[in-house]
Amino acid sequence: MDLFKKHEDLLRRAVEAVYARAFYAAFPEHPKAYGDDAFKEGWKRYQAWLGRRYDALLQEKKAAKWVGGEVSPYTQQALGVTYPVIAVNAFVERARAAFDGWKYRSPEERAGILLESLVGFRERFFEIAHATMHTTGQPLMMSFQASGPHAADRALEAIAVAYDEISRYAREVIWEKPMGKFSVRLRKTFRALGRGPNVVIGCSTFPVWNSVPGIYAGLMTGNSVIVKPHPGAVLPIAMVVEEIQKVMAAAGMDPNTIQLAADTHERPITKELAEHPDVRIIDYTGGTAFGNYLESLPGKITFTEKAGVNGIVLHSVKDLAAVADNIAFSLCLYSSQMCTSPQNIFIPAEGIDVDGQRVSYDDVVAAIVQAVKGLIEHPKMGVNILGAIQNNATCARAEYARKAEGRILLDHIDVKHPQYPDARIQTPLLMETDLKRLNLIEQEWFGPTAFIVKTHNAREGVETLHRVALKKGAISSGLYTTDEAFKEWAVHLLEQAYVPVSINLTGMIWMNQNAAFSDFHVTSGNPAGNATFTDGAFVTRRFAWVGHREKID
Amino acid sequence: MDLFKKHEDLLRRAVEAVYARAFYAAFPEHPKAYGDDAFKEGWKRYQAWLGRRYDALLQEKKAAKWVGGEVSPYTQQALGVTYPVIAVNAFVERARAAFDGWKYRSPEERAGILLESLVGFRERFFEIAHATMHTTGQPLMMSFQASGPHAADRALEAIAVAYDEISRYAREVIWEKPMGKFSVRLRKTFRALGRGPNVVIGCSTFPVWNSVPGIYAGLMTGNSVIVKPHPGAVLPIAMVVEEIQKVMAAAGMDPNTIQLAADTHERPITKELAEHPDVRIIDYTGGTAFGNYLESLPGKITFTEKAGVNGIVLHSVKDLAAVADNIAFSLCLYSSQMCTSPQNIFIPAEGIDVDGQRVSYDDVVAAIVQAVKGLIEHPKMGVNILGAIQNNATCARAEYARKAEGRILLDHIDVKHPQYPDARIQTPLLMETDLKRLNLIEQEWFGPTAFIVKTHNAREGVETLHRVALKKGAISSGLYTTDEAFKEWAVHLLEQAYVPVSINLTGMIWMNQNAAFSDFHVTSGNPAGNATFTDGAFVTRRFAWVGHREKID
Repeated sequence: MDLFKKHEDLLRRAVEAVYARAFYAAFPEHPKAYGDDAFKEGWKRYQAWLGRRYDALLQEKKAAKWVGGEVSPYTQQALGVTYPVIAVNAFVERARAAFDGWKYRSPEERAGILLESLVGFRERFFEIAHATMHTTGQPLMMSFQASGPHAADRALEAIAVAYDEISRYAREVIWEKPMGKFSVRLRKTFRALGRGPNVVIGCSTFPVWNSVPGIYAGLMTGNSVIVKPHPGAVLPIAMVVEEIQKVMAAAGMDPNTIQLAADTHERPITKELAEHPDVRIIDYTGGTAFGNYLESLPGKITFTEKAGVNGIVLHSVKDLAAVADNIAFSLCLYSSQMCTSPQNIFIPAEGIDVDGQRVSYDDVVAAIVQAVKGLIEHPKMGVNILGAIQNNATCARAEYARKAEGRILLDHIDVKHPQYPDARIQTPLLMETDLKRLNLIEQEWFGPTAFIVKTHNAREGVETLHRVALKKGAISSGLYTTDEAFKEWAVHLLEQAYVPVSINLTGMIWMNQNAAFSDFHVTSGNPAGNATFTDGAFVTRRFAWVGHREKID
Repeated sequence: MDLFKKHEDLLRRAVEAVYARAFYAAFPEHPKAYGDDAFKEGWKRYQAWLGRRYDALLQEKKAAKWVGGEVSPYTQQALGVTYPVIAVNAFVERARAAFDGWKYRSPEERAGILLESLVGFRERFFEIAHATMHTTGQPLMMSFQASGPHAADRALEAIAVAYDEISRYAREVIWEKPMGKFSVRLRKTFRALGRGPNVVIGCSTFPVWNSVPGIYAGLMTGNSVIVKPHPGAVLPIAMVVEEIQKVMAAAGMDPNTIQLAADTHERPITKELAEHPDVRIIDYTGGTAFGNYLESLPGKITFTEKAGVNGIVLHSVKDLAAVADNIAFSLCLYSSQMCTSPQNIFIPAEGIDVDGQRVSYDDVVAAIVQAVKGLIEHPKMGVNILGAIQNNATCARAEYARKAEGRILLDHIDVKHPQYPDARIQTPLLMETDLKRLNLIEQEWFGPTAFIVKTHNAREGVETLHRVALKKGAISSGLYTTDEAFKEWAVHLLEQAYVPVSINLTGMIWMNQNAAFSDFHVTSGNPAGNATFTDGAFVTRRFAWVGHREKID
């Protein structure tokens, strides 16, 4: 119970924050809060892993083999880090064995251990940042924030929601039923028991942020966890797994309560893991086809985030330059490799109202194109916003889009990274299209491709966004309007497709952003996924209540 | 908000009770609490429906047709009641249309309406009781309790859990993120939006108790509901639907927010309903094969209670007669047509310890057989405990078991109902078997068939119960032991199969019973079902959080 007491205040604050949904962050997002040398120190630590076995995990001292195939999108060089692997069956067997003990730890013991692991996680934010940068291609600042404080906040949020959903219930009670002259008395005990091994399948772009909610929710509800990272982005999450294992071991738990199960592009193990009869819960972030396959596996409880087609509709604005800048930043940030990045930008052919003046379609388009171009070519921002492209398939996708029917409004620009001349950079491509080419905008073009979609009016833009979201899913959307009635109509329509709407964002806030303790991530109401970070359903499905009752006199 | 205020105290007490899990009942289970003439009055009202159209529903004034095929297990006569039906598509279209308005009612408005409907439900407990008796075959007192106060408590519980899971969250908030010299401010709104039509598929034995949790959870979380009762037991739940519709209409809601969609054995509509793309949520109680089919439907959220194989293990007791009486009652109650009825009774060949004395296997068996026989033949208890058999297939199943290999310990006894000479009565059959004939005890023999299973020792009994539960599911279990260490070992093993254990029940409490606000019904951890009355997962999966955010200065 010591670890629980140590962190109890933090947990209580986090639970309150979950329901208040106002701004709350337990981990500062400003690097300065972590000391002046944090980035340098993190870089050194990251570098020390290169070309080595990742032998810090506690799960396996004598691995059957060591595998790894990560390549830095910045240097195009292999990281050379390898990870210990055993047979899939052996991973699951160990997870089963660890589960039997872990599920009987009290919610307080589990919470204490998991909260303590966040201390170690925090210590490694900057090491993880560099590992994230050189696996995902994210720019460094984003790597730090997304895989560091923002991810740790999401982890804390998952612990808080799960702890609260369990601890709200009495664990032992005398049930006394009055029967007239006498009463029947039962002693009842209630246990929230985990369901068994929980596999968490990571993605290549957000290996930490998208995985920790499932990891911490799974563990907090009494399940053992097997982390199956994307073969292209293992190192960042390996560090998190190691930190949890260290606290587990120090607290006398089986470190196999959480295991890293790495694989390679050549020999993937995900299907074998997911289909293993002892695996009961699956968390997944990635493409739609594989997500649908996982959801169809009988007898599994599956939490998915799949693809979505996000969009922005312009109706009327106060300050076009500010809006164009905001949209440009959303498009450039990590070269649109975010599940929340906008793809389709609907602009009325009739133009839009700008602070009382009509501005033509062409001028609106020009403002956006110019803003994107300006940001790309900005000497200080530029590559520090764009980052690199995680993999070649993403580049090829944009090339394919480039050849589609439609006018190229902004072609790829040749940009060099000052530090990394070999960085895989591909700047956002802006294509013009209209509703005659629905096939283009009805699919996700993951990566730096966006469409300016010319519609008759803003209404048609909202209607199209709504239809595409119903059919293909959407995780975020943007709306610009100064008209209250239009706003209400549009928000109402979009929420029929369970799409959250970001309205009139300008300045230092973007539709891609998603804050723990306030923004629910993915609504689970459209094809973009069946799970939400972090609502009640995300945790309650991971355990079962078992209540026993004994007659007492 | 008036209806909410009217019932707010009740709701608050119910929410507290959900988490306290001590004894709580909002609806008295003693018929006397409802007046001396309640049964008589209910009988008259019930009789007034016979041979008529059930034209009290508000959903459909000009139905395409009227169908019905209920037959009383007591008289073997058709009830002659018919229900309005339209095409499946039309049911779903109306549910869709009603959903659009209903999902935007505030949680308070929905709670107020649903709580008010319980007032009307309560008014009809005794009418529903007779309707339940003459469709399910339940004895009258049980019909009253199970379809009356116990069901209404379960309904209230579902409202309470759902209301609390939604209302715990802020609905509008100013999110202010400090950015150093300035801050970013967003106004955020959060809506818990229902997912769409929720079909609730009823069963023939507990048409009200098993359906109201899904109905009320579905409605409370903002979904419209289509109730598809078992064609053999429509009338009791039709009355509940009518009461909800009346309150809906009085509050200005579309009465189609809940519809009754009856069908017949000859022309079932369940698959067509369940597979309809607009149906998003399905609640189901019934056989395993159909339940598995429903669970496999892509894109649906499904809550199931399927078959289980329940058992009792005897290890050591204080008072054998009291134990035998308790088991006998559990077996006779509604002729074991409860999903919580015991089927396999494991007795050690070495005998059991009875208050310090060893009593042989044969004597233990004899005590149980005698107790069952005594209860069946008891002039006042007898048929008033047994009730009638709902359908011929159940009788045939027991006949089939009777011909299985094994010794008949107690054959069917010819019992006549004093009031209903044609009642379909089949008294519990007790067969002896052992672990060589696992196939017998590894399946559910729904109805009046039980097996005395001779095991080497009590340990083997617990192990078998555990194994069968893992494989086939179990909803309840009974354990008799005076040995603390054995109890702990057995409870631990059984809960590995997520089976709740009732320990040393004697007197006026039986393992079949399951109390709202305290006993979770079905754990969702074994093949007996994937849902629990009423845990967080039972309600949180029925809605999605959609959060919008708008920049403010």
